[in-house]
Amino acid sequence: MPVYTIKFLPDDRAATASDGENLLEIAMRSDVHINASCGGNGTCGKCRVKVMRGKTSAPMHPKVSSKDYDEGFRLACMTTVHGEAVVEIPLESQVDRSALRRKAGGSRVLSSFSSTDFIKGWAIDPAVSKRYIELQRPSVDDNVSDLRRLEREFQAKYGRADIAIDFSVLKTLNRTFRDAGWKVTVTVVESGRGVEIINVEPGNTEDRNYSIVFDIGTTTVCAQILDLASCSVVKIAEHRDNGLDLCTLAESSDYNSQIRYGEDVISRIMYAQKEGGLEELQKAVIRTMNGLISELLGMGNIRAEDVSHIVCAGNTTMTHLLLGICPKYIMLAPYTPVMTTGVSGAAASGAIGSSRVCGDNSADTSSSGIIIPPVRAKEIGVTLNENARLYVFPCVSSYVGGDIVAGVIGSGMFQKENVTLYMDIGTNGEVVLGNKDWLMCASCSAGPAFEGGGIKFGMRAGKGAIEQARIHPVTYEPMVLTIGRTKPAGICGSGLIDIVAGLIETGLIDQNGKFRRDRDTERVRHGEDGYEYVVCYAPESRIERDIVITEVDIDNLVRTKAAIYAGCKVLLDNAGLSYSELEKVIIAGGFGHYIDVERAQVIGLLPELPLERFIFVGNGSLLGARLFSFSKGFLNQAERVARNMTNIELSNSKSFVDEFVAAMFLPHTDQSLFPGVMERLRNGG
Amino acid sequence: MPVYTIKFLPDDRAATASDGENLLEIAMRSDVHINASCGGNGTCGKCRVKVMRGKTSAPMHPKVSSKDYDEGFRLACMTTVHGEAVVEIPLESQVDRSALRRKAGGSRVLSSFSSTDFIKGWAIDPAVSKRYIELQRPSVDDNVSDLRRLEREFQAKYGRADIAIDFSVLKTLNRTFRDAGWKVTVTVVESGRGVEIINVEPGNTEDRNYSIVFDIGTTTVCAQILDLASCSVVKIAEHRDNGLDLCTLAESSDYNSQIRYGEDVISRIMYAQKEGGLEELQKAVIRTMNGLISELLGMGNIRAEDVSHIVCAGNTTMTHLLLGICPKYIMLAPYTPVMTTGVSGAAASGAIGSSRVCGDNSADTSSSGIIIPPVRAKEIGVTLNENARLYVFPCVSSYVGGDIVAGVIGSGMFQKENVTLYMDIGTNGEVVLGNKDWLMCASCSAGPAFEGGGIKFGMRAGKGAIEQARIHPVTYEPMVLTIGRTKPAGICGSGLIDIVAGLIETGLIDQNGKFRRDRDTERVRHGEDGYEYVVCYAPESRIERDIVITEVDIDNLVRTKAAIYAGCKVLLDNAGLSYSELEKVIIAGGFGHYIDVERAQVIGLLPELPLERFIFVGNGSLLGARLFSFSKGFLNQAERVARNMTNIELSNSKSFVDEFVAAMFLPHTDQSLFPGVMERLRNGG
Repeated sequence: MPVYTIKFLPDDRAATASDGENLLEIAMRSDVHINASCGGNGTCGKCRVKVMRGKTSAPMHPKVSSKDYDEGFRLACMTTVHGEAVVEIPLESQVDRSALRRKAGGSRVLSSFSSTDFIKGWAIDPAVSKRYIELQRPSVDDNVSDLRRLEREFQAKYGRADIAIDFSVLKTLNRTFRDAGWKVTVTVVESGRGVEIINVEPGNTEDRNYSIVFDIGTTTVCAQILDLASCSVVKIAEHRDNGLDLCTLAESSDYNSQIRYGEDVISRIMYAQKEGGLEELQKAVIRTMNGLISELLGMGNIRAEDVSHIVCAGNTTMTHLLLGICPKYIMLAPYTPVMTTGVSGAAASGAIGSSRVCGDNSADTSSSGIIIPPVRAKEIGVTLNENARLYVFPCVSSYVGGDIVAGVIGSGMFQKENVTLYMDIGTNGEVVLGNKDWLMCASCSAGPAFEGGGIKFGMRAGKGAIEQARIHPVTYEPMVLTIGRTKPAGICGSGLIDIVAGLIETGLIDQNGKFRRDRDTERVRHGEDGYEYVVCYAPESRIERDIVITEVDIDNLVRTKAAIYAGCKVLLDNAGLSYSELEKVIIAGGFGHYIDVERAQVIGLLPELPLERFIFVGNGSLLGARLFSFSKGFLNQAERVARNMTNIELSNSKSFVDEFVAAMFLPHTDQSLFPGVMERLRNGG
Repeated sequence: MPVYTIKFLPDDRAATASDGENLLEIAMRSDVHINASCGGNGTCGKCRVKVMRGKTSAPMHPKVSSKDYDEGFRLACMTTVHGEAVVEIPLESQVDRSALRRKAGGSRVLSSFSSTDFIKGWAIDPAVSKRYIELQRPSVDDNVSDLRRLEREFQAKYGRADIAIDFSVLKTLNRTFRDAGWKVTVTVVESGRGVEIINVEPGNTEDRNYSIVFDIGTTTVCAQILDLASCSVVKIAEHRDNGLDLCTLAESSDYNSQIRYGEDVISRIMYAQKEGGLEELQKAVIRTMNGLISELLGMGNIRAEDVSHIVCAGNTTMTHLLLGICPKYIMLAPYTPVMTTGVSGAAASGAIGSSRVCGDNSADTSSSGIIIPPVRAKEIGVTLNENARLYVFPCVSSYVGGDIVAGVIGSGMFQKENVTLYMDIGTNGEVVLGNKDWLMCASCSAGPAFEGGGIKFGMRAGKGAIEQARIHPVTYEPMVLTIGRTKPAGICGSGLIDIVAGLIETGLIDQNGKFRRDRDTERVRHGEDGYEYVVCYAPESRIERDIVITEVDIDNLVRTKAAIYAGCKVLLDNAGLSYSELEKVIIAGGFGHYIDVERAQVIGLLPELPLERFIFVGNGSLLGARLFSFSKGFLNQAERVARNMTNIELSNSKSFVDEFVAAMFLPHTDQSLFPGVMERLRNGG
């Protein structure tokens, strides 16, 4: 794909862009400020630029007269580039931001991530696989039972071993064999309990083996449908840019229907104790899952009966509720869940540091424990084929769940020599520190600010969410981009970070997060919740209200980021390490599609380390769930990781409280931890 | 227990009797004829005898005047003996039957049977067992999950290995643990798939582990409830007379409710092919089983939740219908069942001849095959506790089923050096020949005559069935005993053998089974179905009709016995053996409580071998099902036996047809096969 240089005047800043890229997006990631408050939707008309030279494409637009259009004026948000170009930024947007000493090429926006970069030594080898078999027709001289006939051919083709067959499969065996002319495909599950036949279908369906993986969050449920048959490691390696995406047919997400029963896990646990409450909560999340399944099947044009299994990763409470298991004692001291073992039939063999990722489960003789075989998805109400199996990730403790274990698996940190910090910036803010030899984790009780919770106009990273934002250091006018480039409907995690970082960079708020009242802008005003900054005025918003960020919002954000930073610090102290000794910092969470590391450092959410040490994996749980589904070796790995992870309880930790208080400042009370940020603030703020 | 000598006058025949024994029964087994046609019920008054001397006990009776009573007259059927006695038989009953040259002491009536006489080297070690565990209460320093807590204590007490847990158990874990003060009993199942936890109960319930075993016949379903916890081999060995009966709390039987859909397996298979027919048939037999379960629980005063598993043995069609599996191809050439594998999780390891009976299943590394784990009894509609498991015996082929495999196990013939013939004289008449190294079997399509089918007044061996009978050689008056000593309601298998043997011994019928019309008795007459013998007149019968045996009945009996005899002969020929080389002949079937071997030889059902070679085991299937339930080693043994048994198809065997035709005579066309019987008939008939 051709790459062009786009020059922005009058500052003569150069950016590279690929063919067809949106001009406002190029400016955003290149730190060229262009006022824009409608999210890239073409309604505010503020992002007017003049294309001086070069090949661009834009439709006529009511905000641009035909005379102006002829002179080269365009709305940046409506313009795509198709060659080298020179673009002049109008006066009202201009500012030299070089004072902020950003690196050339702009901030490091982390978006693409390929598992193959991180996880080594695994093969596409799902625990649920399909095997085509041609049987001999019965005759007078060979009238063994249908099952014995299957056994004979199966063993001749795949070797001799004890194989269990699901009782329900027997009921259809004679019809299937005869209707199919004795050519059938057998679906088998492999686990710590051996091999089990869970389905027999007519004909050869080896090329139709799909799975659906879920990240079941307290707020949001995300899902992908995967094509297990068409995948191979070779294909994935050839398409590194897409990671595993060749195998992903579709993805979608939705709010967890449990939200009506309470926003956080504690209120859900309370509700589960009411008469019938547990069943109601289970049904609610299954309803959400069934909706997503139906949507994904439609998007991928897949038949429900071709989905052989689903994989779920969720926090410990979500896991209990999904399975209809009472979570009561998760919230009562000493906080014991009913189970942390995964529903996978996997045994936790060996230590974390085992170099083997793949390989069959049964061969590991050191295994022992109580295992939970995968259950029939139908048993908990999931609408798929009769025999589809449900796998659930193991958890660590009451407050470090399967979503985190999945993230550790997905990120590959459990295989590394060097120490990695994994941060899942969701509702709870779980953090993991370790390497191939040891892992420790903590739940920071961070709160849901980055998922939109406790923020007046907060929302999850969906259509219309402001995901990127800049504030002009002189005019204080915003430049915002929304997901889907629609009119703004609210602010998601990455947008929140950008806005608060912008407010502090421009000096609109001080390091306590309070608005300075001496700044000359109408956008800062006293609203119903106190002082606030207007990100988007009502006429330009999708919700026909002013979208603002309030001091209360900022306070919530500060608490959240402080909890996460403090949690990481406590883990590091426990390990006797400092931030600088971290090889990698992996960031997972539902912020949006991007996270701007430098701006996250400005607010003190992320430590001040070289940008290249940060990796943004987006939904880390889903990434792990995908691996779990692709390769059965990860079933054991996940169980092993979950069992061997040391859980550090922060709730009664004195050092956590100290670290938390210290972090309740922007970026931090101890400014020596953020020298770069402080210097930039002094110069530019 | 004291044993007395009872002398019968005028023939001076001596019999031994135990204290309290019934006088008519003593006479019956000692070949002393006393007319009796009400079955031992005291209503016909014909069994009047005179006690000359000795201690006997009998109530006053309307049929005996007080003057006669004072003189010593009694009804034999109402009299018990309590010391040495001399009894005079009245004129009308008298006959010297010494001409029949019976051995002193009477015929060998085989009734009691103890498994310990036959099966060696096994231990009480059920596949479903209970284990009491005391858990540590959770604390801040020890807040692992409930499941991990269980795992820790379980493994500390019972060793380390992978143990699966049934998903449904997880749902009750936290409440059970806390309600029970952390003291619980775990129910585990062991199979070829390893160990699985299927229940966790509060407190110590190790002493409450029951099973119910079923013989599911086409006509009759028999069941016993067993106390697995109180049993031990020591106890059994101490009570050889009772066999395993110490562990049997209750037993019962009932007609299979499927009977309304057809009397034989073929009509059931036909019905199963109708819309909804299979489900109807499955529900019918489950209804029968549930009725028996409820009855047995009541009789034993057992709670349903304390029954950990049930074991079923049935023919191949019954097995399919029980499990809701379509039996269609059992009746269509080339007669392939869907499955013959047992539902037990057992692997068929090694050859029949393996000397190991017990031992754990998993240790056998030579095992391979498709195994069917035990299913939840609830899954097929059995009303027991949520977690109770259902085991089903493996079958051999379409027409040799799990009932026969159970019989082979129960009789121990698969362990013997010498060759045994096993005959199950039920509806199909299956026969098995072999020893520890080889086994062959055949289904004779014998018909249900011995179970009461095709016999005008035939009935199963239940209350009121004539189970023993003699016919006076001069007066042709009958002497009958019924099960329960009630008025006769019909004739069961053993009664039928006795009556037909009596008819031929007395010359009332010829060797073709046709009535001789020159005999001087009103009991032989021309009825609505041709010639017949009146066994019991209407006033003395419970059904208020004359109970007769017709030429059609006799013809059916002859076909049945001919098929069985011919089947045995073909097996022997296949093995190159003769009857005389048989070490043992084991007879199983629902005839009644007894079988009179000499009379069965008279009709040519059993070969003429020394009496001591015959063993009557009654319901052989139930015997095997009991062992299956008591000791998990038999699960593998049964699978091994079923897989290694050679099935000889008689349906298209020329030699079978020849043997069948030859056997259509009483006792047989080849009289040299029955020299003793022929001599007796010549002398006495």
